Amino acid sequence: MSYIERIDDLQINNLKLIQNSDHFCFGVDAVLLANYASTSKGKQPDKILDLCCGNGIIPVLLTAKTEAHHIVGVEIQSDVADLAQRNVELNGLQRRVEIICDDLKNCGEILSANSFDIVTCNPPYKEAGGGLVNEADALTIARHEVKCTLSDIISVSAKLLREGGRLCMVHRPERLVDLLTLMRQNRLEPKRLRMVHPKPGKTANLVLIEAAKYGKPKLFLDPPLYVYNENGEYSDEINEIYERQG
Amino acid sequence: MSYIERIDDLQINNLKLIQNSDHFCFGVDAVLLANYASTSKGKQPDKILDLCCGNGIIPVLLTAKTEAHHIVGVEIQSDVADLAQRNVELNGLQRRVEIICDDLKNCGEILSANSFDIVTCNPPYKEAGGGLVNEADALTIARHEVKCTLSDIISVSAKLLREGGRLCMVHRPERLVDLLTLMRQNRLEPKRLRMVHPKPGKTANLVLIEAAKYGKPKLFLDPPLYVYNENGEYSDEINEIYERQG
Repeated sequence: MSYIERIDDLQINNLKLIQNSDHFCFGVDAVLLANYASTSKGKQPDKILDLCCGNGIIPVLLTAKTEAHHIVGVEIQSDVADLAQRNVELNGLQRRVEIICDDLKNCGEILSANSFDIVTCNPPYKEAGGGLVNEADALTIARHEVKCTLSDIISVSAKLLREGGRLCMVHRPERLVDLLTLMRQNRLEPKRLRMVHPKPGKTANLVLIEAAKYGKPKLFLDPPLYVYNENGEYSDEINEIYERQG
Repeated sequence: MSYIERIDDLQINNLKLIQNSDHFCFGVDAVLLANYASTSKGKQPDKILDLCCGNGIIPVLLTAKTEAHHIVGVEIQSDVADLAQRNVELNGLQRRVEIICDDLKNCGEILSANSFDIVTCNPPYKEAGGGLVNEADALTIARHEVKCTLSDIISVSAKLLREGGRLCMVHRPERLVDLLTLMRQNRLEPKRLRMVHPKPGKTANLVLIEAAKYGKPKLFLDPPLYVYNENGEYSDEINEIYERQG
């Protein structure tokens, strides 16, 4: 097994990120989720939890996009959590960001209930199902619900968020029914939904969702977000999201 | 109370529709729903039920858009059901369309369970809540859940649809969580979702949903539907939907 690492410039606050091409490298979904969470309608968050934090992209971005004093990232894979920890140190963020290597299903015991303002999660998108060749493979774990299900993520979030606190997630549209029903079952009421389209006129391939703990039912639909414009260039909004980082 | 009636040309199969301006007149949502139901992925429907059928716009359009032999429209308000019946007769559709004036909550008893291929419903969009001035007013009943709730509509649909049959609905995005959770609770699995936007770049203000009785969970998102184009004219797709009627 090769270990090929590279350092990317995140183009915000001079932040850098080490990535390993054998692991899951962050994509536009992580950037969009960090941005969505930072535009939450709640008050400025002080405590944020990122579940399935991978190489730490979301906690690192949220140090620039929010004024939160305490950002916790949880990652089950020890080599990936180690990479996240090195990313925190590379950027000198040890006082604000804590990386925990554990199963998120244990977070209800190791973290304080009702204490987080925001929980973010860019989870594995695919259900585990049968036929996965290698359930121990890092990429398989990042992409499939091998180690945790959507239900695990949402129920632990419900426990750890304070009343009125927000769960912000990115996922595939095909799981929208699972997301919305599990959120409501766990008393996390979906309040905002944004469809992310590859370009205008194309079907959305990502959804961004914000749910409020004990919130009143009423969903607000955000305008569609287009990643590319008709000419195949980044849309103005995507450029803004990246420039805002500059 | 005035009774001002007019006859509109539906521009399909020479169909006409009497409308009464004191009642609820059909809008683009009814046309879109009839079209969505006629593009259902199931086999050609033979029996269709339209709940909250109002002046009969959807049953009448579905005689042109499908080959169904038996289309039942249910309307609780007697003067509105009477108008629907006159619309059926005006178009000589008595052999294919039956209008029933009853509370849809009784349909589980008066119609055969597990018998319909498709149920359509363009329901009242607003929850009843407090503060409605006149709960007996025809427009209030058409717009607010005074006489039936979303839960009533979905549970009666679940009873009357055959296995694999489809419930097709149009609604406001703010009720999307209610729609999807109630459908799944009633074993009607949401299979297709289409967001309807007033124009490109604008937030969707309608959703079209198709759910399958005992369907397997996996939502397919349709491409966005734009009612107007950037120049404020009907979009090509809307023109096609209307032209297909011509």
